[in-house]
Amino acid sequence: MTYCVAIKLNAGLVFLSDSRTNAGVDQISTYSKMHTFGLDGARQFCLLTSGNLATAQGIVAQIRHDIDHGMPLSLMTLSSMDEAADYIGQLSVMQQKKAGGGIDFEASVLFGGQILGSAPDVFLIYPQGNHIATSRTTPFLQIGESKYGKPILDRILKPDTALHTAVLCGLVSMDSTMRSNVTVGPPIEVLAYKTDSLEMHNRLILEEDSDYLRELKRNWDERLKDAFRSLPPPAWATMWDQADGEAAAQQR
Amino acid sequence: MTYCVAIKLNAGLVFLSDSRTNAGVDQISTYSKMHTFGLDGARQFCLLTSGNLATAQGIVAQIRHDIDHGMPLSLMTLSSMDEAADYIGQLSVMQQKKAGGGIDFEASVLFGGQILGSAPDVFLIYPQGNHIATSRTTPFLQIGESKYGKPILDRILKPDTALHTAVLCGLVSMDSTMRSNVTVGPPIEVLAYKTDSLEMHNRLILEEDSDYLRELKRNWDERLKDAFRSLPPPAWATMWDQADGEAAAQQR
Repeated sequence: MTYCVAIKLNAGLVFLSDSRTNAGVDQISTYSKMHTFGLDGARQFCLLTSGNLATAQGIVAQIRHDIDHGMPLSLMTLSSMDEAADYIGQLSVMQQKKAGGGIDFEASVLFGGQILGSAPDVFLIYPQGNHIATSRTTPFLQIGESKYGKPILDRILKPDTALHTAVLCGLVSMDSTMRSNVTVGPPIEVLAYKTDSLEMHNRLILEEDSDYLRELKRNWDERLKDAFRSLPPPAWATMWDQADGEAAAQQR
Repeated sequence: MTYCVAIKLNAGLVFLSDSRTNAGVDQISTYSKMHTFGLDGARQFCLLTSGNLATAQGIVAQIRHDIDHGMPLSLMTLSSMDEAADYIGQLSVMQQKKAGGGIDFEASVLFGGQILGSAPDVFLIYPQGNHIATSRTTPFLQIGESKYGKPILDRILKPDTALHTAVLCGLVSMDSTMRSNVTVGPPIEVLAYKTDSLEMHNRLILEEDSDYLRELKRNWDERLKDAFRSLPPPAWATMWDQADGEAAAQQR
């Protein structure tokens, strides 16, 4: 499985991805799902992939091929983020057709970035090739095993959230997902793109043995348990326990 | 959709269920998914259902019919929790066959309780009629929209957790699920069964306008955000923001 998140803030874009790939549970490998393309000062793109690995690698290879061979249609020539998303959707459909089509060969893609002169944007590109954007009320998009980690994103992320807060929130979301689903795992890749910077240098790979990941996991677990313990206990249910104590006492 | 949890603790059993039923998004109704059967001092059972509503209601109707007509095989005659779970599995398969079979008519059931002389138990009964139990490392079972609310259960629940703590944890899990998925909704039903009590009087229905539910929602949201805010910010990502501030300053 996979878990990837892309977040669109006023301050910029944040991308997070896990790196676990599996075909069944007895064939687990590590592949980066984060791919970047760009020309400093002109345009920057980041791609996160889930689904069939061959389809995903095929999309990335074709993007690179089109750039390297100076094709008329490539991420270096398209004039808007929306057109670029359409282009990637077409590559995805093409790759799936090459393999015979069908649900087994599907891939979903998170695609974001900025082209000089336009605002940054983020899209979720479906296996069918069409795409959706974020909105002010839903400033993030997810692919893969998205449910475990969604509640914390729902609660924290707003368009005016700071980049580092969104990174932290994404990592907490990733931690919850890894705790509940073994098919999502490190290394975790993080990329933060600052609006109008037109460069993608804020990138980090947190390996399996990362001190930071381990500390975050411990810290969040502790704080979440503290938060839970600090909730006022339901008076009615506490009474159920007391009655229980009495019954137990009588039985002794 | 549906979200139901059954928890097995040393102190007893806890059952929670939502009450939203939908066929598409334009046909939403409220149905209790919690059904209890028993004879005080002798045996007590609780059933939570998800999936096809006709199948679920058919199972419950047949259980009642078998009890009311003093059939040789009923929840009042079976001698173990395991046999009782098999019996309900058979009723479920029967109901699905009556409707022609297929995935549309499937139902999953959480079934728990206690028979005098044996320990309490909880099972998840699959649409195919077979079942699984909890374990010391996994003291809870879920049916329906289970992923959003699983992380908090994973973190908090242990076999020695108190009944009222498990109730609170189940309600927090339910709150996270309702926040992220509109097809899960109140009234929320709660039942706590105390080991060896052989009575099921600790039951509560929290309606949509419940002050307690509203307070819990507000409290948990606040505490979760506090917990998140108290996390040490990732030093590397904070630097990304600072650089951002400088870049923005230069541009002005």
